[in-house]
Amino acid sequence: MAATASTKQAERNVHIIVAAGSGSRYGGNLPKQFCLLDGRPLLMTTLERLHRHTPDWELTVVLSRDMTGEWQDMCREYGFSLPHSIVTGGPTRAHSVRNAIESLAVESCGLISVHDAARPVVSSSLIRNLLDGLNGADGVIPACQVTDSIRITAPDGSSRAVDRKLYRSVQTPQIFPAAKLSEAYRQELRPEFTDDASVMEAAGFCNLRLTAGDPHNIKVTNPGDMAVAELYLSLSDTL
Amino acid sequence: MAATASTKQAERNVHIIVAAGSGSRYGGNLPKQFCLLDGRPLLMTTLERLHRHTPDWELTVVLSRDMTGEWQDMCREYGFSLPHSIVTGGPTRAHSVRNAIESLAVESCGLISVHDAARPVVSSSLIRNLLDGLNGADGVIPACQVTDSIRITAPDGSSRAVDRKLYRSVQTPQIFPAAKLSEAYRQELRPEFTDDASVMEAAGFCNLRLTAGDPHNIKVTNPGDMAVAELYLSLSDTL
Repeated sequence: MAATASTKQAERNVHIIVAAGSGSRYGGNLPKQFCLLDGRPLLMTTLERLHRHTPDWELTVVLSRDMTGEWQDMCREYGFSLPHSIVTGGPTRAHSVRNAIESLAVESCGLISVHDAARPVVSSSLIRNLLDGLNGADGVIPACQVTDSIRITAPDGSSRAVDRKLYRSVQTPQIFPAAKLSEAYRQELRPEFTDDASVMEAAGFCNLRLTAGDPHNIKVTNPGDMAVAELYLSLSDTL
Repeated sequence: MAATASTKQAERNVHIIVAAGSGSRYGGNLPKQFCLLDGRPLLMTTLERLHRHTPDWELTVVLSRDMTGEWQDMCREYGFSLPHSIVTGGPTRAHSVRNAIESLAVESCGLISVHDAARPVVSSSLIRNLLDGLNGADGVIPACQVTDSIRITAPDGSSRAVDRKLYRSVQTPQIFPAAKLSEAYRQELRPEFTDDASVMEAAGFCNLRLTAGDPHNIKVTNPGDMAVAELYLSLSDTL
């Protein structure tokens, strides 16, 4: 069963899929979101899974200017026909999200979810938990306990241990009321905005709910992660 | 080529492998370190890889009292004959490491490495980098950039974003001069000691070097991680 938005005012709900990054840690010629996952560019799996889990949501994909033509060629080559809008990205992730928001008629939107293209294993149950958890808050964020020990570094190169119990590792999709997200993205964008929750709270929208993230919902980052994503997809019964 | 210790005074070097945990997040009847990885209890792979990478190091395994007999049965059943000492664990990881240190004649030891049993993918290059990085410091620790966004939680359930660039996710093995590690473990042990670096710096041994961790050196924690570890082992050319 697909998850559906439960807010009353929702007219359109939109997934923004951020796929404009260069994926420099992954290596290779292509950004990781276009590398092959089970024989197709990874981004196709991400879009398909979001669509299957929330078939009534629109899809807006943010691409770098360089990759837009190449992506359209890939869609033709692989017969990928799922409808989606394309928006050109900016110099940082936050600028890319802002461009996507500005491309929407936000006043007609209920909810906006922002999702990393490089997380193809996104599951139906994760989205359902997020929508159930929103419940009037300023946003809802999937978060996992941190399993490794954590240290904080100082400018002099030293580091010290911090209490990992206090920390959460944050995933996407993160879901927000469209009007609030749009307002938050009007502020000046700072380099430390690595996700949308950080943008929201810098704008004063601090009532953000955390719900349990999914350890399988990995961000393909390093070589080898693609094979792990394929493994998790093969284990998933929710595609 | 196996890595070798470069300290002058080293007479014996010892790996302490912490395998006394109950692995409650992993599920199943057996702690994860005894679950099957490529058809054998995971701990056997961890020990074998440490031994192949550093054949002149001794192996001391910390087991819970409950599991000691069962482990010995497993060694017989699987024909696992790699020499190792067994020490009984304590109520926390830190107590377990202390028990292991107390079982050694530390004055005859040069270096002690402490390694999580549940990290079977430990590689030769990681150990070599650690030994090269120690170079007179109080210890050396493999650490990775954090790829997910990170939040810190407060007792009231709220949370806020922190700058992930400042944080490092810490792995094992962590390697220390034996005398200093032994001295550090004489202090009162606190619940926030989730690794050995945190014990060292609480005792005033703060000259700890960070070297690049290995993204494949995962700690098997959640269901599905075992298959990922098998995948990484199959990709590894250093077994």
